[in-house]
Order: sequence, then C-alpha cells, then structure tokens
Amino acid sequence: MGSTEQLPKMQYRFLGRSGLQVSVISLGGWVTYGGHVGDQIAFDCMKAAFDAGINFFDCAEAYAGGKSEEVMGEAIKKFGWKRNDLVISTKINWGSAFGSNPVNNGGLSRKHLIEGTNASLKRLQLDYVDLLYCHRPDRNTPIEETVRAMNYLIDQGKVFYWGTSEWNAEEIAIAWQHATRLNMIGPVMEQPQYNMLAREKVEKEFALLYENYGLGLTIFSPLKTGILTGKYNDGIPEDSRYANAKDAFSKAKAETYGDEVWKKDIKTARELKPIAEKLGCDQANLAMAWVIKNPNVSSAITGASKVEQVTRTVQCLEILPKLTDEVMREIEDILGNKPAPLTRRF
Amino acid sequence: MGSTEQLPKMQYRFLGRSGLQVSVISLGGWVTYGGHVGDQIAFDCMKAAFDAGINFFDCAEAYAGGKSEEVMGEAIKKFGWKRNDLVISTKINWGSAFGSNPVNNGGLSRKHLIEGTNASLKRLQLDYVDLLYCHRPDRNTPIEETVRAMNYLIDQGKVFYWGTSEWNAEEIAIAWQHATRLNMIGPVMEQPQYNMLAREKVEKEFALLYENYGLGLTIFSPLKTGILTGKYNDGIPEDSRYANAKDAFSKAKAETYGDEVWKKDIKTARELKPIAEKLGCDQANLAMAWVIKNPNVSSAITGASKVEQVTRTVQCLEILPKLTDEVMREIEDILGNKPAPLTRRF
Amino acid sequence: MGSTEQLPKMQYRFLGRSGLQVSVISLGGWVTYGGHVGDQIAFDCMKAAFDAGINFFDCAEAYAGGKSEEVMGEAIKKFGWKRNDLVISTKINWGSAFGSNPVNNGGLSRKHLIEGTNASLKRLQLDYVDLLYCHRPDRNTPIEETVRAMNYLIDQGKVFYWGTSEWNAEEIAIAWQHATRLNMIGPVMEQPQYNMLAREKVEKEFALLYENYGLGLTIFSPLKTGILTGKYNDGIPEDSRYANAKDAFSKAKAETYGDEVWKKDIKTARELKPIAEKLGCDQANLAMAWVIKNPNVSSAITGASKVEQVTRTVQCLEILPKLTDEVMREIEDILGNKPAPLTRRF
Amino acid sequence: MGSTEQLPKMQYRFLGRSGLQVSVISLGGWVTYGGHVGDQIAFDCMKAAFDAGINFFDCAEAYAGGKSEEVMGEAIKKFGWKRNDLVISTKINWGSAFGSNPVNNGGLSRKHLIEGTNASLKRLQLDYVDLLYCHRPDRNTPIEETVRAMNYLIDQGKVFYWGTSEWNAEEIAIAWQHATRLNMIGPVMEQPQYNMLAREKVEKEFALLYENYGLGLTIFSPLKTGILTGKYNDGIPEDSRYANAKDAFSKAKAETYGDEVWKKDIKTARELKPIAEKLGCDQANLAMAWVIKNPNVSSAITGASKVEQVTRTVQCLEILPKLTDEVMREIEDILGNKPAPLTRRF
Repeated sequence: MGSTEQLPKMQYRFLGRSGLQVSVISLGGWVTYGGHVGDQIAFDCMKAAFDAGINFFDCAEAYAGGKSEEVMGEAIKKFGWKRNDLVISTKINWGSAFGSNPVNNGGLSRKHLIEGTNASLKRLQLDYVDLLYCHRPDRNTPIEETVRAMNYLIDQGKVFYWGTSEWNAEEIAIAWQHATRLNMIGPVMEQPQYNMLAREKVEKEFALLYENYGLGLTIFSPLKTGILTGKYNDGIPEDSRYANAKDAFSKAKAETYGDEVWKKDIKTARELKPIAEKLGCDQANLAMAWVIKNPNVSSAITGASKVEQVTRTVQCLEILPKLTDEVMREIEDILGNKPAPLTRRF
Repeated sequence: MGSTEQLPKMQYRFLGRSGLQVSVISLGGWVTYGGHVGDQIAFDCMKAAFDAGINFFDCAEAYAGGKSEEVMGEAIKKFGWKRNDLVISTKINWGSAFGSNPVNNGGLSRKHLIEGTNASLKRLQLDYVDLLYCHRPDRNTPIEETVRAMNYLIDQGKVFYWGTSEWNAEEIAIAWQHATRLNMIGPVMEQPQYNMLAREKVEKEFALLYENYGLGLTIFSPLKTGILTGKYNDGIPEDSRYANAKDAFSKAKAETYGDEVWKKDIKTARELKPIAEKLGCDQANLAMAWVIKNPNVSSAITGASKVEQVTRTVQCLEILPKLTDEVMREIEDILGNKPAPLTRRF
Repeated sequence: MGSTEQLPKMQYRFLGRSGLQVSVISLGGWVTYGGHVGDQIAFDCMKAAFDAGINFFDCAEAYAGGKSEEVMGEAIKKFGWKRNDLVISTKINWGSAFGSNPVNNGGLSRKHLIEGTNASLKRLQLDYVDLLYCHRPDRNTPIEETVRAMNYLIDQGKVFYWGTSEWNAEEIAIAWQHATRLNMIGPVMEQPQYNMLAREKVEKEFALLYENYGLGLTIFSPLKTGILTGKYNDGIPEDSRYANAKDAFSKAKAETYGDEVWKKDIKTARELKPIAEKLGCDQANLAMAWVIKNPNVSSAITGASKVEQVTRTVQCLEILPKLTDEVMREIEDILGNKPAPLTRRF
Repeated sequence: MGSTEQLPKMQYRFLGRSGLQVSVISLGGWVTYGGHVGDQIAFDCMKAAFDAGINFFDCAEAYAGGKSEEVMGEAIKKFGWKRNDLVISTKINWGSAFGSNPVNNGGLSRKHLIEGTNASLKRLQLDYVDLLYCHRPDRNTPIEETVRAMNYLIDQGKVFYWGTSEWNAEEIAIAWQHATRLNMIGPVMEQPQYNMLAREKVEKEFALLYENYGLGLTIFSPLKTGILTGKYNDGIPEDSRYANAKDAFSKAKAETYGDEVWKKDIKTARELKPIAEKLGCDQANLAMAWVIKNPNVSSAITGASKVEQVTRTVQCLEILPKLTDEVMREIEDILGNKPAPLTRRF
C-alpha cells in the first residue's frame, strides 16, 4: 500500500436511499482510460484508488469507444480484486462505435439497452455491473420502454441498480411514475455535472427528488474540467487537457479561452485561492471538499492520469471538517450563484 | 458496395411509439427465399439490401416451410453482419410443416408460440429476434393466453418487441387491454397489407390505434402483388409470378385474370402511369413512395428475386419529396377509394 | 401404421378455454406402465395410440413409483416423436418413493412442487411437460403457495399449463381468485373421475367453473375400472384387474364383490347391454362414447395393457354420432343418476 | 442407526402457514461447526441428527467465517443424503469475512443479499437453500429493497422461502406490507431467541403476526446458552462454553458471572430442578420440551458438540406429553415472567 498509508480514511455513503455504499470519491474513466492515457498508467491509478479505499469505479460504453471498459475489466482481473469489494458502473446510450450503422446502436430502446449492456459486460469481463446508467435522456424512446428494459436487466441478474445521467427532474419523476405503476424498480441515482460553478441542477432542479424518490447523486466534473484547480488562471498550461485537446468538446472549449464565460470562471477561481490557502490546501482539494460537503452527493467521480492525482484528490477528505458554516458562507459570497429555492410544489 | 453507391440515403423510422428504428424499406422472404429462388440469389438480394441501408429483414415460420428462415440465418452468418445492426423478425402461427400432426403446430397457444419461436430461432441461428409477430389472429385461443406467451418470450430474452399481422383493430385493442391489466407489454406493431388499392384497414380501421397505443405498421404487398407496377396491364407476362404460379393463392388469382376485380385494378394502374411519367419514375416507385408517404407506416416490406429489384425499389426514396399535396390530390382522384373517416369514438 | 388404418379419425378438443388441443381419447399410465405391464407392452400400446392419433399421454410421479414416467420418456425417445406433436402431462403430490422420509416429499408446497417437477422431468427425459397437475388437494398448504409455485414452474419454462386433479370446486375457485389477484395463470384443467356411474362432480359441482374460468376436463376412469364393460356382470374373471389385484385399492374393491355398491353398478351395466347391441358396439365403447359426448370433457384418459385395447377404445368415436337425443334419454332412464341442477349462484 | 433406534419418533411441524415441514428439533451450526469443534465431530453430530429424524439444518454466512456452511455442505455430500429429504437454511447480513472491505459485504442491500447468497450456496455446494434469513435487521437499507432482493432470489430458484432473524414485529409487518403491495412473497418465518428466560418477543411482540401473516418460528437458544440445563448453578464448570469462551459475546457473559442477571437466572434454574425430577428428565429436556410446547414454534434450533447431546436433546419429545396444564402452571409460577397480553390492536 506504500505511499497511501498516510492518506485520510476513505468515507462511504449510501447511494441515495438504497442499501449500497459507495466511496465519496470515485474514479471514472471518461477521457482517460483506454484513450489518451496508456494502460499501465490506468492500472496504476486504479490500484492507487483501490488502495486508498475507493470502491466505486465508473465507466460507459461511450468512453474511448469501449476501450475504457476493457481496461477497467483488465485491471479488476489483473489485481484479483473480489467482486463483492467493488461497485462497478457503466452507461448505455452511445454505442455507435459498435455498429456499422448508428441506427439502434444508440438510444435507450429495449434493443440497445439489452445489446449494449451485454456488450459492456463482455468488455468488462463481468457477469454484472452494480450500477447501470441511462447515459443522457433519449427523447425518442418512451420512458416506459426504458424503465421496463432496465428492470429486465435487473431481473436477468446483469444489473443491481439503475439510474440516469443528465436527465431532467421531470424525466426522472416520469420514470418513477412508470416504475411505481408497474411495480418495478425506479432509478436510484442520477449522474449530473456538479461543482462550484454549476449548481442549478443539483441544488434546485432536483430538490424534490431526494426526499420523494431517495435519489442519490454520483456527480462528475467536480473541478469543472480543471478550472477550479486554478491552473487556467494565467492561460492554458502546456501539459493541460486544453493544450492537447483531443475530443471535440475540449477543442471547442480551448478555442474560447478568454471569452466572457472563461473570464467569469477564472475570476471566481482566483478569488477562491485565499480560502484554500487559509485552509492549508490546494484549490483542487477545496473544490472537491465543497462538492462532497453536499449530503445529497453520494460520490464525486474524479479522473486521474497520474497516480499522484489520485492520492492528492483523496487528501480533500482532510479539508471536509474545516468547511465550517463560516467558511461556507465566505465561499458562497465569492461564488454568488446559490440557486433560489424551489417555490413550486407538486 | 459498388452499384449501390449512387442510391438515395436510406431513411429510418421509429417502429410506432417504440424506441426501435427500422429502415422505411425492408426485405421480406415470403414466396422467395428458401422457396422458388435459389440460395445464392437470396444471399445477393440480402447483401444488396444491407448495403443500401436496409436494416430490417422480415421472415415467418410459414415461409417456404421454414427454409426462408434458414436462408436468412445463413446470410447473416455468411456476411458477418453485427447483430446490433439488424432488425430481424419472424412470425408464428402456421408451423404445421414441423409436425406430423397439424394439431398444436399452428395457432397462438402458449405451446405453439414457445415451441414455434424456439424452432424459428434455431433455423435462424439466432439467440433472439427483434420482432415477433402473431401471424394472423387465432380465434380459438384466448387473447390473454397469447399476450402472456409473448411476454414470456420477451422475459426469456428471445424477443424484444411483439406485434400482430392482419389482426382486426378490436383484437389489437383487446390485446392491449389484457397487457395493461397484467402490467405486460402490448403489441407494438401490426403487419397489414397496404397499397393504393387496399387502404381500408390502415387508413380507417386502425385509425384510433396509432395515437392510443402507439401502434407502428410494417406493411406488406405495397405493389399489390405487382399489379401496381403496371406489368399486368396488357395480360400476364411470361416471366411474372402469376404465369408460373406455384402457391395456391397465386394460382387462384391468375385464373381470375379478366374478372371485375382485375379490370378495376388494371384501370387504376393505367391511369397512374402518367403521374409516374411526370415524376420521372416507374410505376413501382410511385406506388412504393405513396405507401411510405403515410407517416403511420414504419416500414414497407418488399420482396426481391433479383438484386436489381432491391436497388430499383430503394430509388423510390427520391420520389418521396415529389409527392406534394397537389400530386397526392391527383392520385387520390384516380384511386377514388379514400376511406371515410371514423365517426365512432371509444 | 398397419392395423390402425381402418380406425376412425381421431378428434381433438381444446383443453377448456385454452389454445391447446388434446385428442378426445388419451393414454394414461396409472397402474400399468412401469408397473405390472412389461416395458415392451407399454411401448407397443403407446405406439398404437400415437398411430391412432392420440397426442395426449398422461402420467404422474406417483404411478409405479416413478417408473411410469421413465417408460413414457423412454418411448418418446425410442420412437423419435417430435415434442411439438405431443401433449405430455405429469402430476405432483405423492413423491414419497423418492425420499427416505415422507416429509416434504408429498404435498403441494413450493418445495415439493419444484423438487418433484424437476425429478419428473428427469425421469421423462424432457425439458418441460405441457400439463402439470396438482395430484389431489393438499389442505395443509395455502392455495396461494401452490398457485405461486405453479406459476414459477411456468415462468421457468418447465410447464405450459397447470391444473388440478380431484380438487373441489371451491378449491379451484380459490386458486383462480389468488391467480387473478396476483396477475398469475390459473388452473386450466381438472382431472376428475367421470363415467356413467360417477357424475356428480363433473355435471353438478363443477357446473359454474366451465363458463367462469374456462375449465377443461381430462377425465379418468371412463369405464369405472372396467365395470361398465360388463365383464364383472357374472363374477370376477380370471384375467381381470380385480382377480390379480396388486394395489391396495384394487384389492379392497375386489374383496367387496357382491356388496350393495357392486350389485347396483352391475345391474346398470347389465341394463346398458341392449343399448350397446342396438348401436352395434361393445359396452366399453358405449361407456367411452357417452363420456366424450359431454362437451366439457376435453379428453378421456384410458389405460391399456394390450395393443388391442387401444385400437378397440378408439372405435368408440364411431359410436359418438349414434348417441342421438333419443338414445341419450334411454341411457338416462337406465342410469337414473342425473344430478339435479345447481340452484345456488355466486 | 444403532443407538438412535430407541429414540422417540421425531415430530414435524409446518413452518408457520407454509406447506413446508420441519422437524420440531433442528440442528444449528453457530459457534460449533467449522469453528471450535472438529469436522469429524460435526459430521457425527449431523449424522446422529439425521438418523434421529431431524430434517432441518440451520446455518449462516457469519458462522465461523463461512466454514460452518462448508462443513454442512461437506456432510450432505459425504452422507449422500437426498436433497428433497433436507431443509437447509442460511442467513445473510454479516459477510465481512469475505471481503477486504466491510463495505457492502454486510447488510441487506440487493448487492450483498445476491452476492452473499451466491457465495453461501457455493460453500454449501448446493443449488438452493430451502430457507434464507435476513440475519438481523439492516436499518440503513429500505425494507422494500430487501423484500425485492429476497423475491429475486426466489425467482432465480436459489431460495424457496425467506424470513428474518431478530427483526421487530413492526419491521416484519412493513416487509409484508411491501410484499403485498408488490404481489411478492412475504417473510414466512422469524428466528428469534426463545426460552423460559426470554419470552417477551415470541409471546407478546409477535402475537399478532401468527394469525395475520402465518408467521412460523424457528427459535434459537432454547437453553439460554446452557443456563437452563442447571450446569452453571454452582459456578462455571471447566468443560463449559463460558470456561473456554472463544467469542467476544461468550467472554463478556463469562466475566459477569455472579451479577444480578446471572443470579436471577440461576435462581430460576434451581427452582425448575424439582419439576424435571418429577417428570423423570434432566433440566435440559424440560427446557426444550417447554419451548416446543408453544404451537407457534415450528422448530427449536439446538447446537451439539457431541453425538450424545443430539440424542439426549431428542429425548425431550418424551417429556412433551407430560407438560399438562397443571405442570405448565407450576412452571409459570416459578418463571414469573409471563408477558402481559397485547392490548393494542392494528
């Protein structure tokens, strides 16, 4: 375990109202594993994460055209981890890499959910995933069809819990309505973006879902693609994601450096620096701890392309108790984006 | 892909309100594959269809005594097509070829639906079909038994969606009523005959089903056994289906050439000729485009015993945008068989 | 097919309101196959039955301690009959031969129904039976537990339809009530004793079940253990079942020869003789035809320890059309046991 | 069978309102098999129990870190017992021995119930257990999740009946409410502690559950860890469990010898001695018979680390008929702990 011995003890939270526990920090394989990061580095990062107590590893059929799942599956096998010690997820909706025709290789139809999940399990070399996400809504498929297919996969023993990623509150509520009417299992978790700069969905739109459906969150982008680490405060550093943008989304974002959105975000990042210094941590840890402070967040999914990133991230657990009411108020004053409370009731 | 490169881009439609997409033109194996057309021709036609973007291949246990399924299964294997790129259907009700006793080898009983589907999957060399049809109603079996058996097959993973072929609207509504009461999946699609000369079922009888149940149509006989191509306008040509009628239905029809029904249909076919000429296409393409113009038609199933037939059929997609309101009115005036709207409401 | 060529054409009936068809005459393996009749004779009888168009073969775990199932399974394999041409049944409740402890090896508990059916299928060398009966009621097990276990077996694909044998009407109604509440499949058929001398259950007690639940009957003992053949009219012949009684029931019955019950039954048998003569058949065929005349009887189960018995029994189908209203009235006058109609309604 | 020939005939009871029968005396593997008792002794005890008619063997994933299940599975295999002659149970909730991380290796989440049961079945070398218990409540997991997972395991054929161990009446009622709403199977049995010194749960708290849900009890600790045998009346004997306490619970209890609880219990044990003498049995048998006298007790689970203990325990069946109303009143006077009847009604 070596260098991880002095890491803070990992914390675990129940995934919403379910009986499943996930580490509050988890490791995702989005733009990294199977993609621009070599396999050995992916293995090292996963091992460092596991040794640090991270039990939840997040994937998707769409990440690196399926290679991300293959690398994760290989790591699990290679390290001989017990399946019962792990919470493995994947997401279905964007499987066009697996067909010669995009038709029916994406979306949340019964066909693609079943075919896609079977293919993901094969790549992962697993009999089941703990969590299966609908990767974005599919507004062409009736939500009832999706709810039924997810329950079919659960009944087949291929999935333990299902959820959504970046669905709207109304869509989640509709899924629950169908599940309730059909005596089926509703979506247990949602995977939204959440960080100091993007709070509307988690803090306002989903407000009623936590109590009504026991929804848990496994949030992504806690550092807003690195902006909240402060590293873009004075331009795009050479070794950063935006300097070597490989995916269309990153390229587009890199090209707009300097525009109003960047300026506003960087201003916030700069103002948060003194708070981090006062708490004795770097800005990344402050941003991570702030996300985890929200009790509706079951787990914050992080990426890592170096072992050091994993261990540094876990350090944020030491900052967590330092986020007193007063510190939180100071941060709130800087952010200035606290969503107004929901007034409607249904 | 060769000769198909200059073909119009295939269009895909959702199968009714489901999340499954089918090519608007599909290939069926009725009197052809496994029957009077050699295997090599069947393979060539299927390849041409696939290359043209056709993803939906339709079959039935009754076609050519099961050989049609065998040829389709062989083609899928031979060409190494990915299962997720295909929408494969079959139909159960007429399996008497598979027993020494017709009893229980036909109909929509739980026994025949399960035994028949297992046998079809074996002939197709597949683990599942995307679509399973009840091939005609079975008025001796309670519809509830059929609904339960279809859902059983879906639960077993052997079928993704189920539907009917040539059922009455009332029978489809009753199937939905049972499915709803039992929290089961109702019939998603119906396969009726539909063409310029046979419109009552699709345009009148089923009118309420599209909105109420999201019913999709995969219609057959878009050319009315060739009559709408105009080739029978001046008698039965030597190389036509009716000249070499092999099945009882074709023989009977050939023998009545010249009677009132033939006369009326041929008169219509002749009058449509100038429209086709004006649009710069042959009559077959006009008839195909007219069928596809109906948005309730998810796919029009065509037969082909020559590769040229496949590619020619796909050409109809170029005619589709030319079917303006005015052209449609002209056609309507010639057909003179537009069904009166439904006045009853339930 | 040889000697069976001149046999009347077999008739098939739907099993109650289900979509399954059974031959009106069927072959059972009660005291015979695997028991006092040698395997070769059993094979010959089954072949003769199959050649005569009989498609329904009835068995039970209790018959000959499981050997009856083994012989039937062996015959099916030996003759290479197609599974889809056959309707095979078995019955669970009396499996004490299969344990060292009678506890849990009988009854209609979830445990014995599942364990018993699995064991029966193994003896039959089959993946499924078409029909599974609860062999007598089990008043110690809640009917709901039995309904659930039967539906579990159907869901597992091990059974297509389930029913009861010698249950009371109230018990069948309760099973249907549970099945309806739970959206499960209710009992489709009941197997009672039914013959000219035992009519109460079929003609009175079950009267409401045919219409309300679509109950079908597969009756046993159409000849009242041979009494209706007239062979016991003048004592117990040497080669008869009662002369060589091997089971406790037959022994007990043989010992009471001459008592009031025997006297009354034999008087009836004697009086029916002239009717048979008038119709040009033997008394066995008259008794068989009379049973089949009842449209609620889907199939009459017969035993046979000689090939001739099978073919002779099938001859009764020729008598069936001769059972005119007038002949039926004459028979009724002799029997004098027509049950009074049900007056209660629920 | 040797020495067991003169044993009283075993009695069997239905497990609550279910159709399953269990011997009123059963053998459990708590602190013994796989633990401080050698395998050969475990085998001998199990064989003695089976020969004495005991058909119910109770286990848990938590007993001896899974070794208890391994030993039981080995015994079943070794002696060639028929599966249908046995009622085998296990319990899930405490599987931390099977992971490197306690997270998700305990509790009643869908994940642990499925993973834990699969692991238990592997250790037991069985395809299914007859009974699966929730080993204590898990107040972090919604009861609905547990009810669904238990029904999933039943649907998979891995479990026949499910129940609870040491749940509160309210928790059991909530489980039934969810099961009823979802058309699922509710908990059939509860496994509480029950003996002359601990009566509140069985005689008062659960009072309404027997009639309302048909709850059956498989009670443990009928001798209150030996105190009711009278062996601790004059101190802790050298060869007793508390003298060589190996588990934390036993150690803690041993250390409090002499405190008020011990004193009160020993006083009762001493006063019961004359009753046992009058009935001609030892105190252990009196305590066992008293427990079995309660008709809500389906089975009393006993431990045994010597064959003699098994056979001696079974002797209690001879005392059972001697527990007349008068003797029961005498015992009641000594115990002085009869729970007041429930006055609330729901």
